[in-house]
Amino acid sequence: MGVLFDRVCLIGLGLIGSSMARAMKRGGLAGHIVGAARSADTREKSLELGFVDSVSDNMAEAVEGADLIVICTPLGAYKAVAKAIAPALKKGAIITDVGSCKSQVIADINAHRPDGVHLIAGHPIAGTENSGPEAGFAELFDGRYVILTPEAKADKGALKKVEALWKAIGSQVEVMSPEHHDRVLAITSHLPHLIAYTIVGTASDLENQLHRENADADDLVKTNEVIRYSGSGFRDFTRIAGSDPTMWRDVFLTNREATLEMLGRFQEDLVALQRAIRWGEGEKLHDWFTRTREIRRSVVNQPSRSPDADLTE
Amino acid sequence: MGVLFDRVCLIGLGLIGSSMARAMKRGGLAGHIVGAARSADTREKSLELGFVDSVSDNMAEAVEGADLIVICTPLGAYKAVAKAIAPALKKGAIITDVGSCKSQVIADINAHRPDGVHLIAGHPIAGTENSGPEAGFAELFDGRYVILTPEAKADKGALKKVEALWKAIGSQVEVMSPEHHDRVLAITSHLPHLIAYTIVGTASDLENQLHRENADADDLVKTNEVIRYSGSGFRDFTRIAGSDPTMWRDVFLTNREATLEMLGRFQEDLVALQRAIRWGEGEKLHDWFTRTREIRRSVVNQPSRSPDADLTE
Repeated sequence: MGVLFDRVCLIGLGLIGSSMARAMKRGGLAGHIVGAARSADTREKSLELGFVDSVSDNMAEAVEGADLIVICTPLGAYKAVAKAIAPALKKGAIITDVGSCKSQVIADINAHRPDGVHLIAGHPIAGTENSGPEAGFAELFDGRYVILTPEAKADKGALKKVEALWKAIGSQVEVMSPEHHDRVLAITSHLPHLIAYTIVGTASDLENQLHRENADADDLVKTNEVIRYSGSGFRDFTRIAGSDPTMWRDVFLTNREATLEMLGRFQEDLVALQRAIRWGEGEKLHDWFTRTREIRRSVVNQPSRSPDADLTE
Repeated sequence: MGVLFDRVCLIGLGLIGSSMARAMKRGGLAGHIVGAARSADTREKSLELGFVDSVSDNMAEAVEGADLIVICTPLGAYKAVAKAIAPALKKGAIITDVGSCKSQVIADINAHRPDGVHLIAGHPIAGTENSGPEAGFAELFDGRYVILTPEAKADKGALKKVEALWKAIGSQVEVMSPEHHDRVLAITSHLPHLIAYTIVGTASDLENQLHRENADADDLVKTNEVIRYSGSGFRDFTRIAGSDPTMWRDVFLTNREATLEMLGRFQEDLVALQRAIRWGEGEKLHDWFTRTREIRRSVVNQPSRSPDADLTE
């Protein structure tokens, strides 16, 4: 494939950042990779693991001379990152990122982006439950979708270069507007996570109630029972609800509007089914449950890697 | 182990019924197994597969002389089954079942149960996505929990016999009150299923809206996108929402009270998180998401068979 960018700067060296670095090394896609991270431990490990050529604790220094800057921090740090690196960015440099929300992210970066520096925001649909530089691996993005969300006025040449990078890494690239991305991910990812977090918390409170009130043990659900019988459906939710709290706090705060809209639709539907249960409307329930089977079939027929690789983002 | 029941009658020969028959054959636990099923095809297949010794399309005939009767039909059929078999039951016979709800089931059977016939209701926490007599296998209950819910006044000898049967099949037996069972399963199984059915329907409606209104394509989520990006969380829900519609309609109608109670708790929690998102209360979200990780860790540490065997019931 050959070198696509002479100098790449990764800001944040966690699961995604370190996997990107490894994938770029594997393909020989970058001349030099510099990694910026706040934690000395992370910087040391990253050098040791060899997926970066140099490291820095200073973002502004790290982006100097870089042709491509990839922001791989939690969404809540974007504003500070954009502000810190702005004065040091090279003319013609391209900024991209890997965050789960796009509209707000673009606004955050644009607030500080100098003229002549391009922004092509992106989101690889890949991840695992693990985090940190040791958790990354070069194959994480193989065959996975990466969504790019350039603004209408974005530089076409910059878009082509970021697209070429992800294709060289082995991913399938889709281009859509930031607003559309945020709606799609709100229903396929953000709402499912919110719901899973909620029900796992609801179950956990049932246990705490038992401890607090010293109530009739037979009347209340014990947590060892929740766990013991979790194979009956609950287990799938706990897996999602084990995702990183900081990342997900930032996702909900950043993609607030789309998440609240999808949540509103979900709640209307849930109340309709609740009412059908209360009034014993079996046919309504049966119709709804039959309809949802179709989507299941489409998902099963959709080619994908092992479900275990599909956990987060 | 040796024969525990001279004559066993299974009413319903689907996944669970046929698996029980196979497991009893494997252990030599029953002298003669007769299977009752409405469909000629099911009866023929069951004889052919050899997990029953005889079949009948007449439940009353089938239970004649049986020491143990196992009801393995959908919950909605219990009342009719109890009524049909009542006159033919042998004195001292034991009725048990495999249904996902217990309080209502016990009331349905007791309404017709003759004096001198015992009832020990049960619920094996095991299943797969598949159904029908071909889908069953002898190992389905190996190492799995089976909950027995005898009434306080139930015959101790009958309880011991049903307990011994499940242990001989290879399961771990837990005994609790029907009401307690229904609350535990409402949170670990019935509510998760209801939520999964809801969100998959919500997503499906987003697509239909697109078709109906011929609206601005960029503004709406397309179903191929829901499926394409389902790895981001949604996929886990579609798996649950692919479960049998008739079985689950009956579960919600039968375990109405406990399901509605757990649903109410869940909705309160969901609204609290919704409010935290709207008002940007990051700390509240972070606290909640951190708490749910603990339950995830306990679930992961819980010994169990492959997650794929944990899909239903």
